[in-house]
Amino acid sequence: MTEPNGGPAVWQGGTVWLTGLPSAGKTTLALGLAERLRADGHRVQVLDGDELRAALSAELGFSKEDRDTNVRRVGYVAGLLAAHGVTVLAPVIAPYAVSRAAVRDLHAARGVPYLEVHVATSVETCADRDVKGLYAKQAAGDLRGLTGVDDPYEAPVDPDLRLATEELTVEESIQRLRALLTERGLS
Amino acid sequence: MTEPNGGPAVWQGGTVWLTGLPSAGKTTLALGLAERLRADGHRVQVLDGDELRAALSAELGFSKEDRDTNVRRVGYVAGLLAAHGVTVLAPVIAPYAVSRAAVRDLHAARGVPYLEVHVATSVETCADRDVKGLYAKQAAGDLRGLTGVDDPYEAPVDPDLRLATEELTVEESIQRLRALLTERGLS
Repeated sequence: MTEPNGGPAVWQGGTVWLTGLPSAGKTTLALGLAERLRADGHRVQVLDGDELRAALSAELGFSKEDRDTNVRRVGYVAGLLAAHGVTVLAPVIAPYAVSRAAVRDLHAARGVPYLEVHVATSVETCADRDVKGLYAKQAAGDLRGLTGVDDPYEAPVDPDLRLATEELTVEESIQRLRALLTERGLS
Repeated sequence: MTEPNGGPAVWQGGTVWLTGLPSAGKTTLALGLAERLRADGHRVQVLDGDELRAALSAELGFSKEDRDTNVRRVGYVAGLLAAHGVTVLAPVIAPYAVSRAAVRDLHAARGVPYLEVHVATSVETCADRDVKGLYAKQAAGDLRGLTGVDDPYEAPVDPDLRLATEELTVEESIQRLRALLTERGLS
């Protein structure tokens, strides 16, 4: 989508939300995708779940209500950025369908594309990876409310893309993400 | 700063924070400036104080700590947008110097320009205008903690620009804002 006169490419902004369990691979895919998109001249912002929580929701906990509020805040920021031509990648658990629907609605109200991607990694695989040691803590009784274990995860019923990561390499998953963006006019 | 080949203009993003008392004229100036900048091809985002509070800080009140948290959140969002080439206008009271300094530091850490503008309207004039009826409510005893009346306002000691709005027309104030942006390479 480079300008015919050779000027800088102007891309349509949009939000790609990567929802899934802790250690599902959301951040790995977001960072890999971000790198490719930047190389093609996209403005890209990865909204890291932990950083956003610290910046916008430090006082919130992990009740359903607080998780919902946090997801809506991330969604609000994503929508603002996407409306200015940024490709926003949000690797954020977002366990509740109602929260994700609210973020989708917010984007629709702004006229900004929103794509929901389910990073569908089984809880067994996630617990094996355990990037942040959360599954081990939960098993040891040092943590309660771990999404997918003793806290709900409502898997998307009809996501824009579902990545069965246990059957795909990271590279293949990123290729599918790029294909989705191209299909929707975002890449 | 239009591209030599006639492609779309690419502007340096940055944040212009308009601090001042309620009814000082912050939003009027931000909206007026936004209109001019958009006409010149800038991507502009006005971060309205009330909207941002609802979106990011609904649970916060108006204590010093809560006001500080809210201002830092708005600053975080402003920094994200400005880093992607957006000219962000934040007509937000931001009564405490320490909060404004934190926002300035956050922008410096991102390498993004930050300009502090003091919309210096006297409390008497603000109370006369009373756009939202807050001064009347406070006088009637129905509201406590009104900035500049019974809650602190720490006027900037060394702002990038101070607008003595009672001696200037709105048009003149906007011209001074534009001159500041041009001087700093933002317009």
